[in-house]
Amino acid sequence: MITIDDIRAAQARIGQNGRVTPLLSSPFLDEIAGRRLWVKAECLQHTGSFKFRGGWAAVSALSDAQRKAGVLAYSSGNHAQGVAYAARAMGAPATIIMPHDAPAIKRANTEAMGAKVVSYERGVETRDGKAAEVDPDGALSLIKPYDQPMVMAGQGTCGLELAEQAAGFGIENADVAICCGGGGLTSGVALALETDAPGLRVRPAEPEGFDDTKRSLISGHREINNRETGSLCDAILTPSPGEFTFPIIQRLCGPGLVVSDEDALRASALAFERLRIVVEPGGAVGLAAALFYPEEFEGDDVIAIATGGNVDASIFKRALDTL
Amino acid sequence: MITIDDIRAAQARIGQNGRVTPLLSSPFLDEIAGRRLWVKAECLQHTGSFKFRGGWAAVSALSDAQRKAGVLAYSSGNHAQGVAYAARAMGAPATIIMPHDAPAIKRANTEAMGAKVVSYERGVETRDGKAAEVDPDGALSLIKPYDQPMVMAGQGTCGLELAEQAAGFGIENADVAICCGGGGLTSGVALALETDAPGLRVRPAEPEGFDDTKRSLISGHREINNRETGSLCDAILTPSPGEFTFPIIQRLCGPGLVVSDEDALRASALAFERLRIVVEPGGAVGLAAALFYPEEFEGDDVIAIATGGNVDASIFKRALDTL
Repeated sequence: MITIDDIRAAQARIGQNGRVTPLLSSPFLDEIAGRRLWVKAECLQHTGSFKFRGGWAAVSALSDAQRKAGVLAYSSGNHAQGVAYAARAMGAPATIIMPHDAPAIKRANTEAMGAKVVSYERGVETRDGKAAEVDPDGALSLIKPYDQPMVMAGQGTCGLELAEQAAGFGIENADVAICCGGGGLTSGVALALETDAPGLRVRPAEPEGFDDTKRSLISGHREINNRETGSLCDAILTPSPGEFTFPIIQRLCGPGLVVSDEDALRASALAFERLRIVVEPGGAVGLAAALFYPEEFEGDDVIAIATGGNVDASIFKRALDTL
Repeated sequence: MITIDDIRAAQARIGQNGRVTPLLSSPFLDEIAGRRLWVKAECLQHTGSFKFRGGWAAVSALSDAQRKAGVLAYSSGNHAQGVAYAARAMGAPATIIMPHDAPAIKRANTEAMGAKVVSYERGVETRDGKAAEVDPDGALSLIKPYDQPMVMAGQGTCGLELAEQAAGFGIENADVAICCGGGGLTSGVALALETDAPGLRVRPAEPEGFDDTKRSLISGHREINNRETGSLCDAILTPSPGEFTFPIIQRLCGPGLVVSDEDALRASALAFERLRIVVEPGGAVGLAAALFYPEEFEGDDVIAIATGGNVDASIFKRALDTL
């Protein structure tokens, strides 16, 4: 299991290659949320999401020989881009397995970064099965999207930054609403905050119908979603919390939060209007919870991580239509 | 005339009240521009534009008695919000004179920040005439949008930040394309770079039909535009370069750049897709020049300042339609 030292080591490996994403706010959003609302804009990270962090942390932890042999990842898009970007920067060939219904922009970006993209049909084929097909000898280093220690450590670097930024703004106690798929970011940030900002507590946020983490926190074991498609929040549609991520989430996080697709679109629109950042629906789920479900929180401050901004223009226009 | 010391003093007064806006980049944009393209995202500044800087610098330079009496500003919107935000934070009543065709979001935001908004008809009434009407006794401190030393010094703080960020990325020589209306930002940044990054040279960028600064640089005296309306780039439609700003621009800047409204919309769309920031058309003029007119530049790097992000959803949808 990873510790805070793994997260700090990942931060050192990322170093100047990553961006310290800003912690933004707007008096207009404060008014809607009924308290001070802070938004960590991970959509401004390289490749447009926090997934750059895990990708870089994992690829940089490989040996030279492993990097030369190449890396393999499966992803709905943001992890794909994070891994492809890091692999190219460090000279590792990358093969990415993506669901057939991944947003066009995510697939195009991944290919443009030099990765080979292989499609699988979500709900019909499995990602693991496709991986065995593409790399039968296991020559490639698999970089899983969340349930892998170095990836979790990389995502945790977002929490180290947040702890420092929150202290700078005098925020001592607050919930941190994080869009949660498999729980890589959620668990990594929770671990970082446990040490560096113990007054900040992570709250996993999920779309309706994909609230596996919320239900798992209630039942005490890893629940599985009934479906794998059917939400605009493509970035965070995973079947269940990870084997490695869930024990950390269980130990450190507060209750799960659930929002509708419509809430996520409205949150994207408000981020456009009030913060001038582009947030994809799946990256706006935490923000939507903080904005529209104030009764779920206590205290004077709430933090949301806007986890990604890779959204097709057609979907973003739908978000703008909610204004 | 202001000096670098005035800019440093403004930076000290702004201090933690402002945001250090990030210098972003994308390999996709580099490819279009044909060189490394860096974008300083002033749309992420408080109130959504660099105008916060000048507003804060000017209001904070007033005496307590002046602040108590109140401030007056005229603006198409971004300066209005910058002044209103600073005035509210420092307890000064604000009256803002805005053109009748200012974007709805800019007017609404200015009023929401507690300012009194007075309209004038662009092309029929003059801003100065309306100011005399609103404040016949001159009791209010007028904070002009660009042709005022403390405002210019405030905008120059953007240049101090840019100099430091460019050095951090190893950028020694580059042109800096800046959206130019009356020249407050252009002149302030040029002064800051003269001292702190002499290898960086400012290039004023303007929309077609409003290229007064470009023509003034050619003729050697302050040229006037034939019209005051008729561009999507509402933020930078000023009649001519300022009396105080032009001598600095003339001494320090390279030739002017001109782009079409369509270029500005396309640049906004690419900033959405590749940088995940919201840039209004008038704030994307410098970026458009850097992206679409590579023959205007030399060397390995070019920098553009994305000056603002206050755009109505209907216009932003038009930008997205160019993708």
